Amino acid sequence: MKNLNLHPLKKLEIVLAGEHQAFVTDLLDRAGVKGYTIINNISGKGSHGFHAGHVTFNEDDALIMIIAAVPEELTKPILEGLAPFYDKHSGVVFVSEIQVTRVVKFKDDSSTSTEDTGK
Amino acid sequence: MKNLNLHPLKKLEIVLAGEHQAFVTDLLDRAGVKGYTIINNISGKGSHGFHAGHVTFNEDDALIMIIAAVPEELTKPILEGLAPFYDKHSGVVFVSEIQVTRVVKFKDDSSTSTEDTGK
Amino acid sequence: MKNLNLHPLKKLEIVLAGEHQAFVTDLLDRAGVKGYTIINNISGKGSHGFHAGHVTFNEDDALIMIIAAVPEELTKPILEGLAPFYDKHSGVVFVSEIQVTRVVKFKDDSSTSTEDTGK
Repeated sequence: MKNLNLHPLKKLEIVLAGEHQAFVTDLLDRAGVKGYTIINNISGKGSHGFHAGHVTFNEDDALIMIIAAVPEELTKPILEGLAPFYDKHSGVVFVSEIQVTRVVKFKDDSSTSTEDTGK
Repeated sequence: MKNLNLHPLKKLEIVLAGEHQAFVTDLLDRAGVKGYTIINNISGKGSHGFHAGHVTFNEDDALIMIIAAVPEELTKPILEGLAPFYDKHSGVVFVSEIQVTRVVKFKDDSSTSTEDTGK
Repeated sequence: MKNLNLHPLKKLEIVLAGEHQAFVTDLLDRAGVKGYTIINNISGKGSHGFHAGHVTFNEDDALIMIIAAVPEELTKPILEGLAPFYDKHSGVVFVSEIQVTRVVKFKDDSSTSTEDTGK
């Protein structure tokens, strides 16, 4: 029987123009984020409620959403690292609470002996 | 150093047939929602757990998910505004807690002097 | 006036290679899940923070995210059912709290008389 072993993490949903994907994924890599999922084929408009009158996306922009599940202690450095980017570019970051189960296993079993040693 | 300044908001994820996008975005506009993100290329089936036997989407339907981050006080009027729509059309609305950081900045800086005046 | 009647549910976001979609949707069907939404056109990389060094997705993989809103008591059986799959295949499952409103109505009104009888 599997132990489901749900772990609380922060989910970051980072919406930005697709042309800047590499900047964000490089930042995530350097912050120590081990993986992410990208939703392509996104559109958007406006500013998610904070900046009336600032139309930031046009409906024709090719946006993406990069989703990363990160330990809470990485949230602040990542958001701080993204701040200069969002000074110049449109987008939004949603932060929420999720749980991820460690029953999720991975194809490369060559190093399973070291898996979980970090407790 | 940036103040990350995370603000709690409600995230609405509104799933519907793409042909009705304008109805929902117009409703969001009128409710005072300043922006939204749209995930295209969605499919779906069934009724998300409440209405057994009512198959509401077919897997071939062209669905979209409109994501809006709104202040809590807008949640109820928006859901009430959507109710007559969902009397006639298929779909589902997910409501969840998120935080959005105000480090997110926007391209049009022409009115930054009025930014943040609403406290 | 509609009673919005928000119901707390668990949101499962199941990321996997699109070729295995039927395995997961069949599992959801057998678990009693009444519906789901699928985001196509997803890409991903890595392992969402748990398994350093295990690159599990390549950026070119054709991934999907299956979103299901389920009663809390279905979460554990579904995650347990997915465990053997994720022993062999790449992916991740996010679990979070959402609310779904029952103002959502559906096209097929032929059995509305039995709707809501389950309390």
